[in-house]
Amino acid sequence: MSLPAKKPVVLTGDRTTGPLHLGHYAGSLRTRLQLQRSHAQHLLLADTQALTDNIGDPAKVRASVIEVATDYLAAGIDPESTTICVQSQLPALAELTVLYLNMVTVARLERNPTIRQEIHSRGFGRDIPAGFLCYPVAQAADITGFRASVVPVGEDQLPLLEQTNEIVRRVNRQCGVELLPEASPVLSRTPRLPGVNGKAKMSKSLQNAITLSASDRDITEAVRRMYTDPNHLKACDPGRVEGNVVFMYLDAFDDDQETVAALKANYQRGGLGDAEVKRRLETVLKQLIGPIRERRLALAGYPDTIMDILKAGTERARVVTTETLEAVRAGFGLFRF
Amino acid sequence: MSLPAKKPVVLTGDRTTGPLHLGHYAGSLRTRLQLQRSHAQHLLLADTQALTDNIGDPAKVRASVIEVATDYLAAGIDPESTTICVQSQLPALAELTVLYLNMVTVARLERNPTIRQEIHSRGFGRDIPAGFLCYPVAQAADITGFRASVVPVGEDQLPLLEQTNEIVRRVNRQCGVELLPEASPVLSRTPRLPGVNGKAKMSKSLQNAITLSASDRDITEAVRRMYTDPNHLKACDPGRVEGNVVFMYLDAFDDDQETVAALKANYQRGGLGDAEVKRRLETVLKQLIGPIRERRLALAGYPDTIMDILKAGTERARVVTTETLEAVRAGFGLFRF
Repeated sequence: MSLPAKKPVVLTGDRTTGPLHLGHYAGSLRTRLQLQRSHAQHLLLADTQALTDNIGDPAKVRASVIEVATDYLAAGIDPESTTICVQSQLPALAELTVLYLNMVTVARLERNPTIRQEIHSRGFGRDIPAGFLCYPVAQAADITGFRASVVPVGEDQLPLLEQTNEIVRRVNRQCGVELLPEASPVLSRTPRLPGVNGKAKMSKSLQNAITLSASDRDITEAVRRMYTDPNHLKACDPGRVEGNVVFMYLDAFDDDQETVAALKANYQRGGLGDAEVKRRLETVLKQLIGPIRERRLALAGYPDTIMDILKAGTERARVVTTETLEAVRAGFGLFRF
Repeated sequence: MSLPAKKPVVLTGDRTTGPLHLGHYAGSLRTRLQLQRSHAQHLLLADTQALTDNIGDPAKVRASVIEVATDYLAAGIDPESTTICVQSQLPALAELTVLYLNMVTVARLERNPTIRQEIHSRGFGRDIPAGFLCYPVAQAADITGFRASVVPVGEDQLPLLEQTNEIVRRVNRQCGVELLPEASPVLSRTPRLPGVNGKAKMSKSLQNAITLSASDRDITEAVRRMYTDPNHLKACDPGRVEGNVVFMYLDAFDDDQETVAALKANYQRGGLGDAEVKRRLETVLKQLIGPIRERRLALAGYPDTIMDILKAGTERARVVTTETLEAVRAGFGLFRF
């Protein structure tokens, strides 16, 4: 008889900068609903990281902590099997960050492709907040703090994981033991969901998002203005499915992919109008979001319960991350009482 | 009747990278012996900061924590009136650092003249550890964490205090109250003490230092090889006192400055040999260091007492710094349970 295998540890989470939307659902939340059955999953409400480019709007960051936690629970995250915790309430993560900052050069941080891209897209230019440049190090603190070996990421975040593993190897080399595990990425199978206008990624600040608390009417309106094929003027004309947001969303959310394939063929051939495809998507999205919205509404009546869940999760996380900090400090032979 | 005025708060300390020497005594320790009577003084054993350029030698940094604490006590720091505490054991300082990093741009850090100078003198080039570039922010966390309004510094450290006060103003502006005090420098009246070879500053790593635990023999030997006036070959020749290390040390440590002035005049006029001046300095240094060394030896027999003093001081410091962190977080309106 063999011992039950220990569940692999996953760390994931979200910057608390606004409510979650369908992009989060397709890109990560859905995966997490599966992972929580097979893995020891930690979900970090990353309010400290959110401040790296929102220091001027801390009220938004604070309000989003509860909001995102509510989204998690409403979407089906089970706080018994998944640890939901608040980053800013875990001092060991800040302490690990400060320690790891000594193991990474400024030149290395500046070369990080994700950071370069984000600096560009946020328009920081030369005035990057130091906290923003350093956030890959803070992320390494998060991942290693939980001793996570599995991290779900988008392709664009792979360089961040590389940075983490460089620090892991540096720590292990200096400690002379495999103290921290290297983390492997789990790449999302869904390509990044575009906004309803077909532009860029879905984002609340770009006003092209459908949130997980959207009403049926919000959904109807969003689908109505959704970008399709601008040259598909009459139902009888052949239409394009590539770059057609309605079909991309059907790809992401329709459980009956056989029917979706048939609809695509019909659309491409000509003879299927946008209105009909949109009606189908509307139904699919209402069926997906409806129950989440209902649970969200129900949860809103129990703010103390949500707070208690966060407290309990954060307390569990505090034990784990403090243990890691102590182990790293001991491994380096740093001072202790 | 007026209430007793609250003592102004001083923060000062040392990177724990080796035993203290006469340079520390003249530059800061002596001032602290006075300040502890009139001020609420906190002495930080800066082991976290020491790691910003010693991450490869944590054992040295750890050993120095106790060593420097012993130097403090032996030199006359009174743990009843001065809080002696260990930086790495104060998580609130790391948390404030991570928060403040969002309020300073990378460009601003790179412009800091102290950092530029130190990057140059440590030969970091482009490979500065991020922790080193960011240490002025960590120092701002230290100073504000204790809500210090007085910081003894050398002239070369004034830019660091400016950086702190920029952060103080930024925090206060955003919180809408004068939450943190700006810190004023107390400039040391003693110019920086050169090494016994007359080169650069006194530094253990340059092997030109006289430590506070030096034996009488160490002192004799150091004074013997001390740099004087290379053109003052015969006692009867006129000699230079500028750049003459023996006279610089007499300036710094001889209580009888009238006699020192007379000796200088005699030396400049001609007729006073190096040997005689050195004999005087030897006596002065032996009288200064002797009692410190004795107390150091005595203290070495009570390691638990030293540890208890550090524990008690760190516990007091933990209360103060955690209060500050909570106040800043509340002032920003960040999440709390």
